[in-house]
Amino acid sequence: MAGSSRRAGGRRLQLPLLCLVLQGATAILFAVFVRYNHETDAALWPWGNHSNADNEFYFRYPSFQDVHTMIFVGFGFLMAFLQRYGFSSVAFTFLLAAFALQWSTLVQGFLHTFHSGHIHIGMESMINADFCAGAVLISFGAILGKTGPAQLLLMALLEVVLFGLNEFVLLSLLGVKDAGGSMTIHTFGAYFGLVLSRVIYRPQLEKSKHRRSSVYHSDLFAMIGTIFLWIFWPSFNSALTPLGDGQHRTALNTYYSLSASTLSTFALSALVGAAERLDMVHVQNAALAGGVVVGTSAEMMLTPFGALVAGFLAGTVSTLGFKFFTPILESKFKIQDTCGVHNLHGMPGVLGALLGVLVAGLATRDAYGEGLGSVFPLVAEGQRTATSQALHQLFGLFVTLIFASVGGGLGGLLLRLSCLDSPPDSQCYEDQIYWEVPEEHADAAQGPLRPEEPDTQA
Amino acid sequence: MAGSSRRAGGRRLQLPLLCLVLQGATAILFAVFVRYNHETDAALWPWGNHSNADNEFYFRYPSFQDVHTMIFVGFGFLMAFLQRYGFSSVAFTFLLAAFALQWSTLVQGFLHTFHSGHIHIGMESMINADFCAGAVLISFGAILGKTGPAQLLLMALLEVVLFGLNEFVLLSLLGVKDAGGSMTIHTFGAYFGLVLSRVIYRPQLEKSKHRRSSVYHSDLFAMIGTIFLWIFWPSFNSALTPLGDGQHRTALNTYYSLSASTLSTFALSALVGAAERLDMVHVQNAALAGGVVVGTSAEMMLTPFGALVAGFLAGTVSTLGFKFFTPILESKFKIQDTCGVHNLHGMPGVLGALLGVLVAGLATRDAYGEGLGSVFPLVAEGQRTATSQALHQLFGLFVTLIFASVGGGLGGLLLRLSCLDSPPDSQCYEDQIYWEVPEEHADAAQGPLRPEEPDTQA
Amino acid sequence: MAGSSRRAGGRRLQLPLLCLVLQGATAILFAVFVRYNHETDAALWPWGNHSNADNEFYFRYPSFQDVHTMIFVGFGFLMAFLQRYGFSSVAFTFLLAAFALQWSTLVQGFLHTFHSGHIHIGMESMINADFCAGAVLISFGAILGKTGPAQLLLMALLEVVLFGLNEFVLLSLLGVKDAGGSMTIHTFGAYFGLVLSRVIYRPQLEKSKHRRSSVYHSDLFAMIGTIFLWIFWPSFNSALTPLGDGQHRTALNTYYSLSASTLSTFALSALVGAAERLDMVHVQNAALAGGVVVGTSAEMMLTPFGALVAGFLAGTVSTLGFKFFTPILESKFKIQDTCGVHNLHGMPGVLGALLGVLVAGLATRDAYGEGLGSVFPLVAEGQRTATSQALHQLFGLFVTLIFASVGGGLGGLLLRLSCLDSPPDSQCYEDQIYWEVPEEHADAAQGPLRPEEPDTQA
Repeated sequence: MAGSSRRAGGRRLQLPLLCLVLQGATAILFAVFVRYNHETDAALWPWGNHSNADNEFYFRYPSFQDVHTMIFVGFGFLMAFLQRYGFSSVAFTFLLAAFALQWSTLVQGFLHTFHSGHIHIGMESMINADFCAGAVLISFGAILGKTGPAQLLLMALLEVVLFGLNEFVLLSLLGVKDAGGSMTIHTFGAYFGLVLSRVIYRPQLEKSKHRRSSVYHSDLFAMIGTIFLWIFWPSFNSALTPLGDGQHRTALNTYYSLSASTLSTFALSALVGAAERLDMVHVQNAALAGGVVVGTSAEMMLTPFGALVAGFLAGTVSTLGFKFFTPILESKFKIQDTCGVHNLHGMPGVLGALLGVLVAGLATRDAYGEGLGSVFPLVAEGQRTATSQALHQLFGLFVTLIFASVGGGLGGLLLRLSCLDSPPDSQCYEDQIYWEVPEEHADAAQGPLRPEEPDTQA
Repeated sequence: MAGSSRRAGGRRLQLPLLCLVLQGATAILFAVFVRYNHETDAALWPWGNHSNADNEFYFRYPSFQDVHTMIFVGFGFLMAFLQRYGFSSVAFTFLLAAFALQWSTLVQGFLHTFHSGHIHIGMESMINADFCAGAVLISFGAILGKTGPAQLLLMALLEVVLFGLNEFVLLSLLGVKDAGGSMTIHTFGAYFGLVLSRVIYRPQLEKSKHRRSSVYHSDLFAMIGTIFLWIFWPSFNSALTPLGDGQHRTALNTYYSLSASTLSTFALSALVGAAERLDMVHVQNAALAGGVVVGTSAEMMLTPFGALVAGFLAGTVSTLGFKFFTPILESKFKIQDTCGVHNLHGMPGVLGALLGVLVAGLATRDAYGEGLGSVFPLVAEGQRTATSQALHQLFGLFVTLIFASVGGGLGGLLLRLSCLDSPPDSQCYEDQIYWEVPEEHADAAQGPLRPEEPDTQA
Repeated sequence: MAGSSRRAGGRRLQLPLLCLVLQGATAILFAVFVRYNHETDAALWPWGNHSNADNEFYFRYPSFQDVHTMIFVGFGFLMAFLQRYGFSSVAFTFLLAAFALQWSTLVQGFLHTFHSGHIHIGMESMINADFCAGAVLISFGAILGKTGPAQLLLMALLEVVLFGLNEFVLLSLLGVKDAGGSMTIHTFGAYFGLVLSRVIYRPQLEKSKHRRSSVYHSDLFAMIGTIFLWIFWPSFNSALTPLGDGQHRTALNTYYSLSASTLSTFALSALVGAAERLDMVHVQNAALAGGVVVGTSAEMMLTPFGALVAGFLAGTVSTLGFKFFTPILESKFKIQDTCGVHNLHGMPGVLGALLGVLVAGLATRDAYGEGLGSVFPLVAEGQRTATSQALHQLFGLFVTLIFASVGGGLGGLLLRLSCLDSPPDSQCYEDQIYWEVPEEHADAAQGPLRPEEPDTQA
């Protein structure tokens, strides 16, 4: 067939060989370095005077499973809105995240839980691994449809390392708070992907323009992704916050922020839409911006009112971004952002970081009481003032933008290596180049890619 | 286009303005009244000799997330069975519930947790807010396809208040037990919607008759909704019951009741179907009646056998209702019940209330032991006999029917205001009037609404 | 219509009557034998010095709900890949599992929790009932599309009993460990279904060949099933393991095993695919083999490295099985395995049992410390050596294969009873014979089964 005949000789083996090499390498590294931690090792648990009920599993696992659902169901189906790229959207999400979580277990492990020559893993490392996979999938959204799976795996190989380094600088060196990852996940993932998309800019992409839109059913599949992301975002932001009121408050703030971004998205979508009609792209994406924007501040004393305002602004900015900024991004800045990650993760992520600066700067011992120690330990210990914490937060955003931009640039150069199998301009956003696509039983023939009449018509 | 040209002048701005006004109003009310409660405030938690593990988050949050999934995924996709109303079903569910949960936080807060001038919120209020959103979505089901989104928001504005008042009368004034909401949620939501549907009766609705059915794929999308509602219903009924055996028993009873309603639905559907073939409408809806029917009694000592019998009856009544009663409802009573909420929520809700009367009346200290205090506190304290509790339960049903009917009537009058943007009879059950609908890539042209050949055919 | 006219006279009543009889019988047995256990009975809880927080509900319910999602959403949608059998796949899964969980409550109850004349039920029995339903659905996968719903219910009636007996022999008599059911669920369910499929072999099945494949959207529906199975498999394997480190470690091992089987599936699928293109059948199924293969050993000290290797092998074996073994299975062994359960559950299940033999045989007190007592109680008590435990595990596999084969043979003979309503060879994999199937609004007429033009074309 036309699609596959372009993939000559050795290129065809790129995906299987890369999968095998990467899996082999992580397996060897796991053998050498990775061990169960105190909570998962039969010989080490229980320690001290803990009972089984104290195992972290019972405090984190339900949230972990919600996050896991967001990564694999949420991202996968959200990106399945394209009419002819549903297989790739769902299944490359699956592949990329499955690799990223292994690789980030290693990278984050070396940076955070390496002692006595071993990485120690358990519930927290699993959540962190899923978070890192989330950042990779955000970047994937920016270049969706324009790269092959082998290229994506290489991107993940690089991005996971830079994600780990950036997170280490922010959380461990700068003492920045970012439980839900407005900076470390959303801002980082978005700008990494956008810069990468700039580097692999395709001037002839209009050849695939007709596949760049949705069809009726693909929009409904995408809504599966949207809704699962939306309902479980409170778990995402609260998955790694301190136990007790911290986790509880984070979930609550995120819940209200999301509800407000939903209302503002509908309002703005109807205002700016042609003939005041709503646009599914806005609903699928901008309604989620409320989760991104409180990623840093949801664990703080944001107040329920603050959560509503933050969500409202994020939904507004995001919807307007889809309408007015995405076209400019392509025409002026040569950034082809397939899923609009700039609107869902980029701008709301930066906004969320700035909101974190504000809320951290306003922190007082009055407002937090004894809880100050768990939200801002350095402030509670007197090592920093609230203003200093705020400045550190701001600097963390700056660092993240640097890491993301440099990383995205490097990633783009890597993906432009001419030996890599990349879809031609005319075959972007098309499953058939990578997948055995079944014949449609009742559809008419669909042009050159589908020459035969299916059986059922006979 | 035909659909949108009917929406002249100022009417086009109804949805965005209403969203903005409602969001602005709730935000201001949140600023003035809403505060974190003892479990979510950094300065107030932990209180007494509680440890972080005692935070209610860990006892309620997994159930909350299941309920949240039911509201947004369950209701949204269940209503996506219509062939040309999938966008509206899923996305208006999203909009309505996002507004309803904010608004009900306020209404229920004033009625239940208002002290020292503030409403205090946390996990319980979030679950209650989702429950209230559920009642609004049940009413939405009755009028699905016949109203615009601005009308729906106004309906929610009214219904949330009446829901809160009815619930307050039942739970706080009458001491009625209704953890899973057979009365407060299902009966109330269904009859509110049905009376409202009666008031906005459209005699010319057969103009849209051809869009009132499903297509193959839309029925599968609807099954996503059904199955998620079915599996998580045990969490719905048990989300707010007393901790310990109460929550455990409620989940168990609901699980068995649902399994029995599934078998009776398949049996009855095959019995009454044309050529004994099964009907997806029955499976999508009546199989869920087992969850509704034990909404009041699942926390009581219903016994596993009682749960099976209740579920069996509910599935039977519901399936027969779809077959024989829904047509009469429209032809005789002029109630156009799009989703058949009378069969899934109305009749099983009333049945569930009556079952609650029966099981409460049979309560003895022998059967409940020390647990009597948590299930029937007034009986345990000697303030009531079991018979008196049963009579209070019965009166609660009566009150609910009054609130629902009067409220639905008022709601109908509100929605009939001629200034409101309502779809014409010929454009009911049609997404295109509210949504940018993508062209189908491989479908033939579909009449006047889709004049252009899509790109991919070129 | 053609489909239904073949179903003459009394046969039409088979499904409704069977549903009613089975539901009636289980209800009576529930009335006589089934009671709440100590954790669900208001009069018995709390016992000893337990507080409400100690109720098993809080340790098991989130995992139970994940398992429940896998059974009803996972299996149901995974099997919806067929182009014209989506209603039956999702809805017969629903029916079969709803019956199986009631029936297995009784069967497993008599074998495991029967004392003082009563079966006592709670969270553990609910998880066990869902597990048993899982085995029935695996067998369903082997014969998908070739049997009517009444036949399936009879299969479940038999299989649940044999599942219970086999599990009793393994867990209670032999002291075998199999928390995630590599043997009791996957191996048993697969070989029961495969032998049954052999007995009901249809030589003329090519008459339905054109319906045996997927269409684009049905493959996406199937991916809903795959992804939910994949993300929640850690909960499946850990749902019934000992609390604390056991549950934690089991989830962790399964998580990594699945990530490795995903990478190996993509690698192998691309290697063996035509023109190196990926095949959705492999991704939908083989990527899950990592969950099956650690079903026995995930609670043991498998090590994270061991989990990766196990998952990698399982994904490889499973993908190669689909490519090379499934065709032989039909042509040489006359086993028509619709969903390829031999590749997903059969071979990985046996592999998982053997891995359990290996890991059990390597168990030392050094590696498990005090935890040896909860993983291998008989070894810890000195009643067995690790080698003896390994041999018992091996014997358990042998017993399972015997039970499955004999049971599947009996099941096949039962389903071949000429009085049972079975679809003709030309109507296999076709919903229309059992379901009212809606007209497609925009599709062309589809041959003899769809003679009328739909309304919307008018």
